[in-house]
Amino acid sequence: MSRLLPTALEKLIDELGRLPGVGSRTAERYAYYLLRSEQRINDSMASAISEVHSRVKTCPVTFALIDADQELSPLYAESDRDKTLVAVVEEPLDIISLERTGQFKGTYHVLGGAISPIDGIGPEQLHIPELIDRIKRDEVKELIIATNASVEGESTALFLQKYIKDAGIEITMSRLARGIPVGVDLEYADQITLSHALEGRRTL
Amino acid sequence: MSRLLPTALEKLIDELGRLPGVGSRTAERYAYYLLRSEQRINDSMASAISEVHSRVKTCPVTFALIDADQELSPLYAESDRDKTLVAVVEEPLDIISLERTGQFKGTYHVLGGAISPIDGIGPEQLHIPELIDRIKRDEVKELIIATNASVEGESTALFLQKYIKDAGIEITMSRLARGIPVGVDLEYADQITLSHALEGRRTL
Repeated sequence: MSRLLPTALEKLIDELGRLPGVGSRTAERYAYYLLRSEQRINDSMASAISEVHSRVKTCPVTFALIDADQELSPLYAESDRDKTLVAVVEEPLDIISLERTGQFKGTYHVLGGAISPIDGIGPEQLHIPELIDRIKRDEVKELIIATNASVEGESTALFLQKYIKDAGIEITMSRLARGIPVGVDLEYADQITLSHALEGRRTL
Repeated sequence: MSRLLPTALEKLIDELGRLPGVGSRTAERYAYYLLRSEQRINDSMASAISEVHSRVKTCPVTFALIDADQELSPLYAESDRDKTLVAVVEEPLDIISLERTGQFKGTYHVLGGAISPIDGIGPEQLHIPELIDRIKRDEVKELIIATNASVEGESTALFLQKYIKDAGIEITMSRLARGIPVGVDLEYADQITLSHALEGRRTL
């Protein structure tokens, strides 16, 4: 391969190949695009990549991502957010999905992952103590445990539920509904989803 | 959206969204990866993106991509390459695919695209005069027209064939064989490919 491509282009392909889910063919396409684009586009992308660490930080209360010059997440600090209702999510980007519904006026708490013994992630690596503090301080009334519908997400939800009960905290806890997604035909729904949809059926 | 994400992260998502075929979800995933990676990884990717223009140039004979400090493409200049056999390709990256076969010991000529009236690309934008010069100078005996199997690639092949004949140049010209790709069942092959496979059938 070293004879085939200029060194700088090969380096660029290697670098882009680090991005999640990007194989060598995709990295080649990206690199070729960047080779043909204007220098100002490359410079702009390069500086965005270099600067993201220093310009983004984590909200000390919700662990959402915020600007480096902000003190708290606006989704927590702003007056229209109900601090007594907290949605617990795994990752910061999960907040975007929930906000896009436009339905939720509570606040968020990012755990920073899910319990996964295989990956060596135990409850002690997640922002659970901070959640307990927050429940007490903000007199939280309801916790929506919005972890993913994966094995790890379910384990984390179960763990949290037990942990909070064991801590003697009386609070309403809920989990997002599971069922058939909008636009999916019954025949294409998998068995487990269908079981959940049956269990969670609603009287008309 | 502006309330949802830190400014620098949003900028990074926008920048990454310029890459070909990258939608907003994919750009978010890439940006989140870059947010969590080490600074040296970001810096290394950023410099590869910034520097690719200045460190890569085009071979003045073959129009392949070469290092800025090279004079000619090694795939042309090296003594084991047969300069009388030229494969004509649309884009520089097509060379990699042909080289990967390990079967071709000729040289390459990159046209820099294909004729596409819709995109405003006519023959005058392609490196055709340079190809004619080269055929004469290097006494080229055979031209493999390896443009893509698309409408544009076919038109370009037909145009080249006629152009070279009209210029009074006597030379063997061929086109890559079309047929059923290895590992594909007959029932899944499309009609046009199958027609080509029939036409191009080989006596056993």
